[in-house]
Amino acid sequence: MWGGRFAAGPDAIMEAINASIGFDKRMATQDIAGSRAHAAMLAATGVITDNDAEAIREGLLTVLSEIEGGTFQFSTALEDIHMNVEACLKEVIGEPAGRLHTGRSRNDQVATDFKLWVRDQLDAAESGLLALIRALLSQAEAGADWVMPGFTHLQTAQPVTWGHHMMAYVEMFGRDLSRVRDARKRMNESPLGAAALAGTSFPIDREMTASALGFDRPAANSLDAVSDRDFALEFLSVASISAIHLSRFAEELVIWSSAQFRFVTLSDRFSTGSSIMPQKKNPDAAELIRAKVGRIFGANTALMMVMKGLPLAYSKDMQEDKEQVFDAADNWMLALAAMEGMVKDMTANRESLATAAGSGFSTATDLADWMVRVLKVPFRDAHHVTGTLVAMAESRGCDLPDLSLEDMQGVHGGITEDIFTVLGVENSVNSRMSYGGTAPKQVLAQVARWQSILAS
Amino acid sequence: MWGGRFAAGPDAIMEAINASIGFDKRMATQDIAGSRAHAAMLAATGVITDNDAEAIREGLLTVLSEIEGGTFQFSTALEDIHMNVEACLKEVIGEPAGRLHTGRSRNDQVATDFKLWVRDQLDAAESGLLALIRALLSQAEAGADWVMPGFTHLQTAQPVTWGHHMMAYVEMFGRDLSRVRDARKRMNESPLGAAALAGTSFPIDREMTASALGFDRPAANSLDAVSDRDFALEFLSVASISAIHLSRFAEELVIWSSAQFRFVTLSDRFSTGSSIMPQKKNPDAAELIRAKVGRIFGANTALMMVMKGLPLAYSKDMQEDKEQVFDAADNWMLALAAMEGMVKDMTANRESLATAAGSGFSTATDLADWMVRVLKVPFRDAHHVTGTLVAMAESRGCDLPDLSLEDMQGVHGGITEDIFTVLGVENSVNSRMSYGGTAPKQVLAQVARWQSILAS
Amino acid sequence: MWGGRFAAGPDAIMEAINASIGFDKRMATQDIAGSRAHAAMLAATGVITDNDAEAIREGLLTVLSEIEGGTFQFSTALEDIHMNVEACLKEVIGEPAGRLHTGRSRNDQVATDFKLWVRDQLDAAESGLLALIRALLSQAEAGADWVMPGFTHLQTAQPVTWGHHMMAYVEMFGRDLSRVRDARKRMNESPLGAAALAGTSFPIDREMTASALGFDRPAANSLDAVSDRDFALEFLSVASISAIHLSRFAEELVIWSSAQFRFVTLSDRFSTGSSIMPQKKNPDAAELIRAKVGRIFGANTALMMVMKGLPLAYSKDMQEDKEQVFDAADNWMLALAAMEGMVKDMTANRESLATAAGSGFSTATDLADWMVRVLKVPFRDAHHVTGTLVAMAESRGCDLPDLSLEDMQGVHGGITEDIFTVLGVENSVNSRMSYGGTAPKQVLAQVARWQSILAS
Amino acid sequence: MWGGRFAAGPDAIMEAINASIGFDKRMATQDIAGSRAHAAMLAATGVITDNDAEAIREGLLTVLSEIEGGTFQFSTALEDIHMNVEACLKEVIGEPAGRLHTGRSRNDQVATDFKLWVRDQLDAAESGLLALIRALLSQAEAGADWVMPGFTHLQTAQPVTWGHHMMAYVEMFGRDLSRVRDARKRMNESPLGAAALAGTSFPIDREMTASALGFDRPAANSLDAVSDRDFALEFLSVASISAIHLSRFAEELVIWSSAQFRFVTLSDRFSTGSSIMPQKKNPDAAELIRAKVGRIFGANTALMMVMKGLPLAYSKDMQEDKEQVFDAADNWMLALAAMEGMVKDMTANRESLATAAGSGFSTATDLADWMVRVLKVPFRDAHHVTGTLVAMAESRGCDLPDLSLEDMQGVHGGITEDIFTVLGVENSVNSRMSYGGTAPKQVLAQVARWQSILAS
Repeated sequence: MWGGRFAAGPDAIMEAINASIGFDKRMATQDIAGSRAHAAMLAATGVITDNDAEAIREGLLTVLSEIEGGTFQFSTALEDIHMNVEACLKEVIGEPAGRLHTGRSRNDQVATDFKLWVRDQLDAAESGLLALIRALLSQAEAGADWVMPGFTHLQTAQPVTWGHHMMAYVEMFGRDLSRVRDARKRMNESPLGAAALAGTSFPIDREMTASALGFDRPAANSLDAVSDRDFALEFLSVASISAIHLSRFAEELVIWSSAQFRFVTLSDRFSTGSSIMPQKKNPDAAELIRAKVGRIFGANTALMMVMKGLPLAYSKDMQEDKEQVFDAADNWMLALAAMEGMVKDMTANRESLATAAGSGFSTATDLADWMVRVLKVPFRDAHHVTGTLVAMAESRGCDLPDLSLEDMQGVHGGITEDIFTVLGVENSVNSRMSYGGTAPKQVLAQVARWQSILAS
Repeated sequence: MWGGRFAAGPDAIMEAINASIGFDKRMATQDIAGSRAHAAMLAATGVITDNDAEAIREGLLTVLSEIEGGTFQFSTALEDIHMNVEACLKEVIGEPAGRLHTGRSRNDQVATDFKLWVRDQLDAAESGLLALIRALLSQAEAGADWVMPGFTHLQTAQPVTWGHHMMAYVEMFGRDLSRVRDARKRMNESPLGAAALAGTSFPIDREMTASALGFDRPAANSLDAVSDRDFALEFLSVASISAIHLSRFAEELVIWSSAQFRFVTLSDRFSTGSSIMPQKKNPDAAELIRAKVGRIFGANTALMMVMKGLPLAYSKDMQEDKEQVFDAADNWMLALAAMEGMVKDMTANRESLATAAGSGFSTATDLADWMVRVLKVPFRDAHHVTGTLVAMAESRGCDLPDLSLEDMQGVHGGITEDIFTVLGVENSVNSRMSYGGTAPKQVLAQVARWQSILAS
Repeated sequence: MWGGRFAAGPDAIMEAINASIGFDKRMATQDIAGSRAHAAMLAATGVITDNDAEAIREGLLTVLSEIEGGTFQFSTALEDIHMNVEACLKEVIGEPAGRLHTGRSRNDQVATDFKLWVRDQLDAAESGLLALIRALLSQAEAGADWVMPGFTHLQTAQPVTWGHHMMAYVEMFGRDLSRVRDARKRMNESPLGAAALAGTSFPIDREMTASALGFDRPAANSLDAVSDRDFALEFLSVASISAIHLSRFAEELVIWSSAQFRFVTLSDRFSTGSSIMPQKKNPDAAELIRAKVGRIFGANTALMMVMKGLPLAYSKDMQEDKEQVFDAADNWMLALAAMEGMVKDMTANRESLATAAGSGFSTATDLADWMVRVLKVPFRDAHHVTGTLVAMAESRGCDLPDLSLEDMQGVHGGITEDIFTVLGVENSVNSRMSYGGTAPKQVLAQVARWQSILAS
Repeated sequence: MWGGRFAAGPDAIMEAINASIGFDKRMATQDIAGSRAHAAMLAATGVITDNDAEAIREGLLTVLSEIEGGTFQFSTALEDIHMNVEACLKEVIGEPAGRLHTGRSRNDQVATDFKLWVRDQLDAAESGLLALIRALLSQAEAGADWVMPGFTHLQTAQPVTWGHHMMAYVEMFGRDLSRVRDARKRMNESPLGAAALAGTSFPIDREMTASALGFDRPAANSLDAVSDRDFALEFLSVASISAIHLSRFAEELVIWSSAQFRFVTLSDRFSTGSSIMPQKKNPDAAELIRAKVGRIFGANTALMMVMKGLPLAYSKDMQEDKEQVFDAADNWMLALAAMEGMVKDMTANRESLATAAGSGFSTATDLADWMVRVLKVPFRDAHHVTGTLVAMAESRGCDLPDLSLEDMQGVHGGITEDIFTVLGVENSVNSRMSYGGTAPKQVLAQVARWQSILAS
């Protein structure tokens, strides 16, 4: 395979560390698409004959059907998917197979295959994110006015609505979508024809292969084209941030499913039991989704470390790129799908949510804001008065609305009966009408905005 | 500071772990800009009086001048920049200071400050990348036809040109630029007015403050607005990939500066000596730049880990965001500037480059390609013949052009005198005219394309 | 500073990226201790005179007192702590100062300083871990028989005791302690005398300086001695695993402090309030501790990446080692101290814990185990019967002990009245007498074992 | 499998994310060993009959032989290796199989299996490290006096010897060995019998199973025993630091193999060729080894992130532990073996090494040291004089020994003819007789020390 030069073959350890066919066979479809485009271009530019190109293109379809049919015999001695496909092509069509590799190299070939593979995954991520966003919109629309506690530090802060909380995740996954699209656009340049690293003296047409493979243009520097793995690093970065969002939601689902919270009931389909504790209904899917960020960002770390300090153009270190991306992509898609399934199936326990929303002096801010708005007390002073009233209520074991007007006036003489109109949970959420606020009307407006975005 | 509720103050350990003023004072300018915009809006919407707003806005300028003048006394007891500024404002203007915090919270305030700070850094990164790209273009234009070895596996592969190699980095830093711009656009939504997490019942105008602060729009969900740190994570991701590029170039500069390579001479300004070995001229700046990716991606890892699994909306964990981003930003900007300086100052050793370019059978591919093109031999067969000729030359201790025509014909009868026209290094690089190839004409075309991009 | 060779001085960017005095001044004490030991050895081996050595050693004490007194003027132009100290020494004692650097280099000097600094931190970590373990033992001893729910998947699984839960963390921090001690022992070899990288021709006595500085022996290979940063990497690894333990406990404290759980009350000293929500008592210290693992493992990542692929012996990249270790050490010590403070101050809410312990069919396993033990039913069958009974109880909205004997016998005929003796929470925990189990007697045995370990 | 409780089965996505049998089948041997020890103990303590235990233990051997024979049908519906083995056991022996799971849970079972697996890998790492150290010792002994340049900043600093350089790596891999042994000792505690998390009411004997499985003792806290993954994190930390060492050596081999350095010739067995450049001999194995640290530390990052903030005792997140450790272990072992093979096969190019050792004023330090030693000039002054002489030699294009005595005396009058005895490379290395220095005698002493360590 390496010309006539080598006296001794690689030994078993070398074969084990060197061969990539065990994983890069996942790029068979992309490899064959790239070779078919390359062959057509070689004929169009007169580098090979039309007959040879036709034989190659047909032969590659035969190879593809063998691979898809599961009858292809992958050989570790042939190292990688490129050589496996070419060797099989030679068996199928004979001599013309030897003309396919003209004007290219494994360096640009593997970059092309891998880019096509990553691009497919960006498309899959877009689908997965859209499906998850739709599931969240359904929950948000249904529960636009279901009150629940809004937490900071996992302490009840102010009442919010279920729909508002769901829409926070729509924003997060919406940013993921935006990052996916930017990444796809940026990476969509074709390395094919960069050859080993310097370009080629054959009169190839890189625009033609780029276009055939759906790339926007050929990459503008052949050294960069074969040494660049930005597209893989950016894929992993984008996936990692998305996995952070998934981990945050998953953490909430785990906490919300606890007996202490009971905010949500997950479906049986996304829960499991225990081998020793038959009563358990465990949020396994949520926990596994929470964990996936480790694996995905672990892959990001791995490839960053591999690429650190690599001189141009191609170094074998870069062969470590694919398994990391494959594993991260698989797990990101799986986590998106599992989260979508859970969101679709889950049931908010409206009663528990409402009860919790009203506890913990959650409308203290409303009281302070009322003083600012109505009594024109400076915010900092209103804050201090409210703190005193909360301390009073807490010491009496009651809630703020349970204090009498006299109690309140004892702390601040200006307070009037009107104060009781802002202390209820429903009043509180309805009053938060600032743009992006938790008022059900605002939530529904955001749901409508997103539905219109998705429809366009 | 926390109302009247707390019986005991925090002890020394708590103060040490809790206070952020030691680092968040770097956001003083942003904090004051945000507060000034907020005050103007509160007046415009009738929440506070014009007089109060004017007093606040003027007072904040006084505070700012104290900070910029270095006379401001930062207090750890006041925890953070927000409380320090507000306390000072109160000293300066008295009662109206207490009205500033109406309709907002430290949660949206810190998110706003931090976003403004990160946005400034994205702008600084854009400048730094542009300056570095310009320095590379100068090198590329000057050396568009200086031959040097193109390496794969740090082994001579094919001759390339100095300009081509420089342009590979232009592509890389160009992608960084593109990522910086995408990140800036995506993050440019204002959290201000999200208040603690639920929005507010005051009739605030979030569009107005967003516009005053240069944001494209207000963030659409108040929970997300205060819990989102995507902009920081994306900044760190973008910086990390850019730092990979810097590390690769720095590695090359270190290797190229070795006595064994002598490809490049770095200026004294970017080198250092040794305390014990006076003859040494060490590429310290290159080594430090190479190392910076550790620190920057370390910050990325840190913040990813902090954000993993955090429930909404705000948790104190998120206070760990700033130091990581500050340090990464400082070091990215420094590394970009140092690399720009080195690139401007460095001298390519044309003679060493040319000598190295011609050694190691670097035009073997040209020989094989000639056979394919002229003799219509299949690529794989031409490859085999070339391998045999290389082995012959190596065993005789000579180069390919030193073999006689008879020697060559002994291996493949079809070879003619014409073969000697493709074996020279100059011929080789001139022949690589495929788009993005190493031919000087192609390199100059890319330089021109980039100059036109930068001019627009 | 670099001999007479350099024509141009470094410019501002170079100085900014190159100088380390901004951070390595933290090693002043270690630097001076190392130099004093070195000077004494140079005199003992006759390399310098006793008078010179005495002048150097006394002069260094003067320098140290200036640094400790805060009057020392650190100079960025002098780059690092070593040159700053030596320059000051020269001012203090004149010519003999120039003899101090004989037979050593900054390479072995910085390795020595840094190792001494890290060793001090390992000692500090040992103290911090011991203090935290003692605080946990106090909680465990007091609450050896306080029942609480044992969770898997944050679902109630089986009752455990407060003491048992505390002792789980004693085991974790105990392993940290063991790792700290192993790391200290392994790293305790002196680099001093390795000189630049090759050793020296002066007749130095490396055993003597090693011993004076408390090292167990000199490092056995001079190249390795100056290029090794294992001790820093291992410090960061050990700190990272310890920070994982801290993050897990902190997460539990955050969840346990929620209104929904109310398992624990944190002291005011380790909580904070909110600027807008006066009723809040936020577990800030716990959240910040939870976050610290990001920063510490971020430092680990940073240094791993810096060291990756560095050729021997010294490269300037390695200057990036100290800030990472300094920051990680500071934050680890702070987190240990804050956790110790929180543990000492916190109050378990026994009533909430007990109520929660009994809910959720937490003694289902006891029922199944009873069937296995008494009825000799295979475990898997007992498990199935129990599942059926739990489903029955759940559908009736009652607990397992509320089912009648007839109900139970309807599912499995062999069940007798005796079953009710194992269903209570107290019975359950008392029955778990296997070694390391949750029975109060077992917990107290473990407390005693640890107290005896700590006393020895 | 989860009792009678669940109405709906998991759907395909849940099965995909939840099932672990795809990877945890690698622990089949460990699972069966653990179950056999458990069964024997259950009989010895009277929990099950001797007949049942015997049937179980024999049946498990049958299951094992099916697995080893490749005839075992793994079922994804049965989730994991534990359930697959138990289900098969039931087919083989019927009813008694249902008694095996008495007094344990999958939580302690999986912890036990995984610890046994990791322990085996620590033993394998010990073997791999020892073999690599032996290969390095052979190189060191053979080349104890072969001179080569010692580099700092990849600039020639001082001459060293090949043997000395090899011994630097012996020290590094020796520390890895020490970490492996510490980790093995620390983790060797048995989780078996911790049951789900609380221990058990069956009168089990945890000492007996611990001893049967080669553990030093049972883990002392059942909650910790099932929630602890320190052993996996420490394994990954130790492997990561070792991989750093491998990456540094691999980087050197890549650089040394370049045409510019030619310090070393790698064997054909550990090199590869190129599909387009037949003359290339690429150090692929070295590059792949260099890259492995990414993957291994990526796994470390992944598991750190998974474990961050997990409440006790068992969460499903922890299922993500195994694939990371499996992959890291496989790649560490492979990298150690490949490095051992390369070291055994590689040939130092003595002539290139010697030529490079003498260039670059590499004995400048010797000149300075001579002035200090003989003329009693302070080191800093000698350093300055030497710098001047180096500048003079450089400007004349000659080496230091080529300067005349008059030239030297023009710079410093005290220099005598004797100076020429220290400027040669051989003299230089022979003079570095400090402990751990590069003098061949010191190198051979260290080789002997290590041979004696390995022999004991």
